[in-house]
Formats: sequence, C-alpha cells, structure tokens
Amino acid sequence: MTEWFLDGRPGATVSADDRAVQYGDGLFETIAIRDGAPRLWDYHVERLQTGAARLGLQVPAKPALRAAVHTALDTAQAGHNRCVAKIILSAGRGPRGYRRTGDASPTLLTGVAEARRLPESSYRDGVTLRLCNTRLALQPQLAGMKTLNRLEQVLARSEWSDDSVFEGLTLDTDGRVICGTMSNVFLITGQALATPAITRCGVSGVMRRHVLELLDRAKIECQVRDVEVGELWAADDVFISNSQFGILPARRCGNHAWQTGETFRRVEALLRESGVAEGPA
Amino acid sequence: MTEWFLDGRPGATVSADDRAVQYGDGLFETIAIRDGAPRLWDYHVERLQTGAARLGLQVPAKPALRAAVHTALDTAQAGHNRCVAKIILSAGRGPRGYRRTGDASPTLLTGVAEARRLPESSYRDGVTLRLCNTRLALQPQLAGMKTLNRLEQVLARSEWSDDSVFEGLTLDTDGRVICGTMSNVFLITGQALATPAITRCGVSGVMRRHVLELLDRAKIECQVRDVEVGELWAADDVFISNSQFGILPARRCGNHAWQTGETFRRVEALLRESGVAEGPA
Repeated sequence: MTEWFLDGRPGATVSADDRAVQYGDGLFETIAIRDGAPRLWDYHVERLQTGAARLGLQVPAKPALRAAVHTALDTAQAGHNRCVAKIILSAGRGPRGYRRTGDASPTLLTGVAEARRLPESSYRDGVTLRLCNTRLALQPQLAGMKTLNRLEQVLARSEWSDDSVFEGLTLDTDGRVICGTMSNVFLITGQALATPAITRCGVSGVMRRHVLELLDRAKIECQVRDVEVGELWAADDVFISNSQFGILPARRCGNHAWQTGETFRRVEALLRESGVAEGPA
Repeated sequence: MTEWFLDGRPGATVSADDRAVQYGDGLFETIAIRDGAPRLWDYHVERLQTGAARLGLQVPAKPALRAAVHTALDTAQAGHNRCVAKIILSAGRGPRGYRRTGDASPTLLTGVAEARRLPESSYRDGVTLRLCNTRLALQPQLAGMKTLNRLEQVLARSEWSDDSVFEGLTLDTDGRVICGTMSNVFLITGQALATPAITRCGVSGVMRRHVLELLDRAKIECQVRDVEVGELWAADDVFISNSQFGILPARRCGNHAWQTGETFRRVEALLRESGVAEGPA
C-alpha cells in the first residue's frame, strides 16, 4: 500500500480536473529510500527537472522537492528507513482542453510505500525475463522521460502473469532492444559492455546512469548505442538495472540462457562500493 | 468549469492510487449533449467498449454508462439541455507497479461542462489551422482510441497561443497527415473526398465516423487511406470534424488557403439533416 501526500500534506486524492487524471500531463520518479535518505537523489531531481523543461511544466525547486519527500517520510506509517518514495508532478488543475493555462500551479504528490525485498537467489542466480510483444513507439519528444503516459508499459506488463518471470523486455517498433517495463538492460559480449541508446523511446533510468558513470570512472567502456535483438541473444551475459533493486543478472529469456560471469560481478562490486548494496550481504 | 461525478455521485476527486493518475491507464469520451440527450451515443459507447477490450479494461454495460451520464446531467449546475459530458474510465485503484491486479474495479468519472459556442463566422468562413511540429508516434496498439495518454496532443496544443488559430494539424513521425489535436480532417480534391486512415496513430473521432456513414449512405465516396502532407496543400477544400462542433471548413493553414466549396456544403447539409445542427441557423 502506498500512503499519499499532496503538496506535503497527507491526502490521498487528486482533483478530477487535474491534468494527471485527464491527460497524463506530468512526470514521476520512484526513489529508493535507504538509511532514511533518498538514494541517487541528484539524478532523480535532474531527470525530473529536465523532463519538466522539455514538457514545459513548472517544477518545484530542489529543496522543496526534498522537503516534500521528507515530510512524507516523517508522516508515513511505513518504516521510513528503507522504503520507496514516489513523486508525481503534474501540470495541475485546468479547464477542459489540451491547452495549458498559464495560471495553473503544478500538483506535487508524494507517495511512500514499503520496499520490496527480492530473494538473495535473484542476485546470485539471476532472474527470468520474457520478450514482450508490445513494442515501444518511436517518439523522440518523449524519449528518456518518466512521463505519466505509461500505457505501453501497462500493456507490456499485462502480457504475463507467471510470477517466475521477473521482467519483460520491450523492443521498439523497428525491432531494436530498448529496455524492460521497469528497468534498463545491459549486454556483456566478451569484454564489451553495451546498453541501448534511449533517444527514440524508453526511459533513461537513474540506476542506468549511475552504472554508466561508475563504469566510466573505472575506465570500463560501455557503449550506449542501438542494440539489435540478435545481439541480445548472442550476448554472453545480460543484466537489468532499476532504482530499487540496483542490478540483477538475467538468467534466461524464452529459450535463450545467459551465464553470469566475472564482468557482471565486477559491475556489482562497483555498485556495492558506491553505496548501492542491494545484493546478498 | 467542469463538475465531476465519481461512479454517478458528485465528487471532484480521484484516489492518488488510481491508475488514471499513475499511468493514464484508461479511456475517455467527450460527448455533446443536445436537447438533453447524448448525441452519437452509440458511437461513443462502441468506441469506449472497443478500446476497453483492446486495453483489457473492464467497462460498465451501456445502460450503466447512460445512467451515469444522466445522473451527472440531472445533478450538475450547468444547463443540461446543451452541454458537454465527459466520461473517464480507468483501470481503477491498484498497488504500485504496471501490473494490473484482477480484483480492481474500474473507476467511472463523469464530468459536465458548458458547451462552447463557436461564432457563426467559423461555420460560414472557416477556421485557421496550423501545422504542428509535434509528430504522432506510430503505435498501432493504441491507434484509434481516446486513451488517457495524451501528452502528444498536449505538446502539439502548447505550440500556439494565438487565439486566431483554431486547431493544429499533426503529422505522424513518417510525415503523413493524421488528425488535429482535437479533431479529424477531411480533404476534398475535385469531386474526391479522403480522410486519413487511423491505423498507426491518431484518434478515430465519432463525428468522423458519423460523416463517413452519412457519405456512404448518400453514395458519396470518401477514401479512408494514407494522406501525404502534399495532398493537404493540393486539396481544393479541407474540413475538420469533432463531436462538439460537428464540421468546420478550414480556411487556411500557414501560407496555404482553401476555398469552401459546394462539396463541403453538401456534407454540411447531410449532417444537418442527420440532426447534427451546429452551424449557422
């Protein structure tokens, strides 16, 4: 269950006139709270601010966002040492019609929910993926952002109910590998790392960014580029990243299986050293 | 101002947990109420039902939808003889995550707002369009439906604030003409009528359907097919359709101008005979 706060005050409802309800006119962030503090906070705020600028949305200043999260954490029933905080920023209430009026104030919702704990085996042995039939449309104007328009992810996630499948990978309408419904994906082929470019569709995850920056600092090359689906099957190792679970090795996807190797464990170690310690203790 | 009703009861709020807020996981209809009754009601219900089936959403039965609209009309302050009713159907409340749980009941919101009256000159002399820079992504899985994921329309509508421009036309990412932000478009070239196929993106308007059926009954051919932007400029006459205003001649778009001719007036007459009498008396 998620406890919701509106503009920092407990309150679980949104006006029906809100443009989040009407058009999905907004953005969100799902933030891991660890030891009482938002993890990768700067990246979450940057993505929200960049997205707001691209959509023409007003966004509260960074201290106000932080205050909203902390007010929610302090007030929520959920243990706030380790949990999930969700920020929803919408264009606010408005009259009927797609046109935004200049005088609307943005709506800032903050939700706090319990963090899901994955079994140690997921980190050790890897998780099962599936390849979704739902494709992501090519829309550079929205690519990278975590907008409130998420029907493609909902449709992709509705393709399976088998709990042994942890995540579904989605291709774009041209057949390139883009990301999972709630994660980004990395391929390891020999010594080479790659992750799909998120320029035409998909979400640029904060954990993806963190992994890329750690790799860069460690002088391990990771190409950010278009990835064909054949490369996915040909890869030696595949892993997925997400703000909550960090990184997880992928064990199989359909008939394809991968072996978790040394390179993945090195990335995992880098992540652990950086303070993202989600794996087995 | 829109007055909102939740499941038929007055109440202007939606749970923050609602999947309309979280993901835009739902559909809507904007219905013209004329002489106290919903116009083109069957088409609105069919589109909602078809969309719900495609998205895997539960949808109330037709009499329940009608009852929700009438309860809202009877209770609303707005004059309910001539107004706008909006139905929002969402996947309902759910826990965090894209996955829909089987036990969620759909949320049905009904809004009532005053109908906008367009000046007689809009019907007589035509309206000014603009060509939007925002393109519609090719997503056959969502094409035709009026989903709550409307960021493309919001971005397209945010391109202009000049009130002399009535509507913006949007192309798809391949450059084909698709529709307006809130309307469909028809081209008249010589004796030939055409309207863009809505198979890869765009919304299939109920007024577009009504016009197509009237033309078919009158044995006037109208091709439903891909339309290149060059054809738009080469057309003799262009008009737009929408559930509220019926049809409106387009006078110009950027440097291109069209002349409202006899064929348009014939379509307008067919529409008036069918009971859609929005134009000058």
